[in-house]
Amino acid sequence: MSVLLEQLIEAFRVLPGVGSKSAQRMAYHVLERERAGGRHLSKVLAEAVERIGHCARCRDFSESEVCAVCGSAARDADQLCVVETPADRLAIEQATGYRGLYYVLQGRLSPLDGIGPHELGLDRLARRVAEGEVRELIIATNPTVEGEATAHYVAQLARQHGVKPSRLAYGVPLGGELEYVDRGTLSHAFGSRTEISE
Amino acid sequence: MSVLLEQLIEAFRVLPGVGSKSAQRMAYHVLERERAGGRHLSKVLAEAVERIGHCARCRDFSESEVCAVCGSAARDADQLCVVETPADRLAIEQATGYRGLYYVLQGRLSPLDGIGPHELGLDRLARRVAEGEVRELIIATNPTVEGEATAHYVAQLARQHGVKPSRLAYGVPLGGELEYVDRGTLSHAFGSRTEISE
Repeated sequence: MSVLLEQLIEAFRVLPGVGSKSAQRMAYHVLERERAGGRHLSKVLAEAVERIGHCARCRDFSESEVCAVCGSAARDADQLCVVETPADRLAIEQATGYRGLYYVLQGRLSPLDGIGPHELGLDRLARRVAEGEVRELIIATNPTVEGEATAHYVAQLARQHGVKPSRLAYGVPLGGELEYVDRGTLSHAFGSRTEISE
Repeated sequence: MSVLLEQLIEAFRVLPGVGSKSAQRMAYHVLERERAGGRHLSKVLAEAVERIGHCARCRDFSESEVCAVCGSAARDADQLCVVETPADRLAIEQATGYRGLYYVLQGRLSPLDGIGPHELGLDRLARRVAEGEVRELIIATNPTVEGEATAHYVAQLARQHGVKPSRLAYGVPLGGELEYVDRGTLSHAFGSRTEISE
């Protein structure tokens, strides 16, 4: 096989979920049918890797010093939603009508991996909360052990500054079938049942 | 979301099997954890798209006028294996100990899509067979309707020049369970049963 083709296949493996077979398929597909698309991908990828950094306010990805959401006058500065990753932020933005601001941790507390409050910018978050503009801190970390530990830490930080911490409701997902919901979720949903109002 | 990030996600969709969700995951993954890998992919991709063309002998992908296999003195020039795609060629090369040469059609006969003998380089294949060096034409097109039609055409072409056409054995795949083998394959395998020699 051509050396360059081998290099291309190997290079595609940097993408998540791409093993040697998919990488090969991608390389052949681009060469057979999508040379223009491949050229475009190469250009945009190089540009993105160079130019996309982090927003100075919310730590989300941004090409500019401050991202569009943080810079927008139309957003509510008294609500701040704390998420683990940019993908979580995007999911909330797309699914809800939330008009407040975000704070992206770019990770979760994980002392064994050397990820402490500083790595997640929690000192910066504390300063921001101390400024007094934020009234509610909506904690939307993932419902995993590490996500919960992070949520706990952030909630304490909020209370220290007299800000109300809140978190997403956990329970049975809409459209799911009880039979297939995992035990932990079902038990939590049962314990946190809410009264049906008339 | 950053405009450049949106462009990157869109650009990833050129890859096969990549929808908007995987494209998003790829973009975030590269930006979060693999900037160096992303930079490398961009570079190799641009180079591959520019520099990889087709081998003048076998039509496989090649950076040079003639690919390494066609240019090798160690390969048997009297056997020529005809495959549909570079991926098929690679699969045979990796799975078997075949030491002959290849001819890559880069497609299959499909008159409705305007793909005739000329598009597959079958005129060039005919000239090559006419040169007299090839003694056996191993037809390894896919066992689909179009692949079979292509195989039929290539076999005729071989016979016209007094060359022996052969094709891969079809039957039950090794390690499969009869229960799960499709009917057509099973029926073919049953009809083509071979005697067990002592």
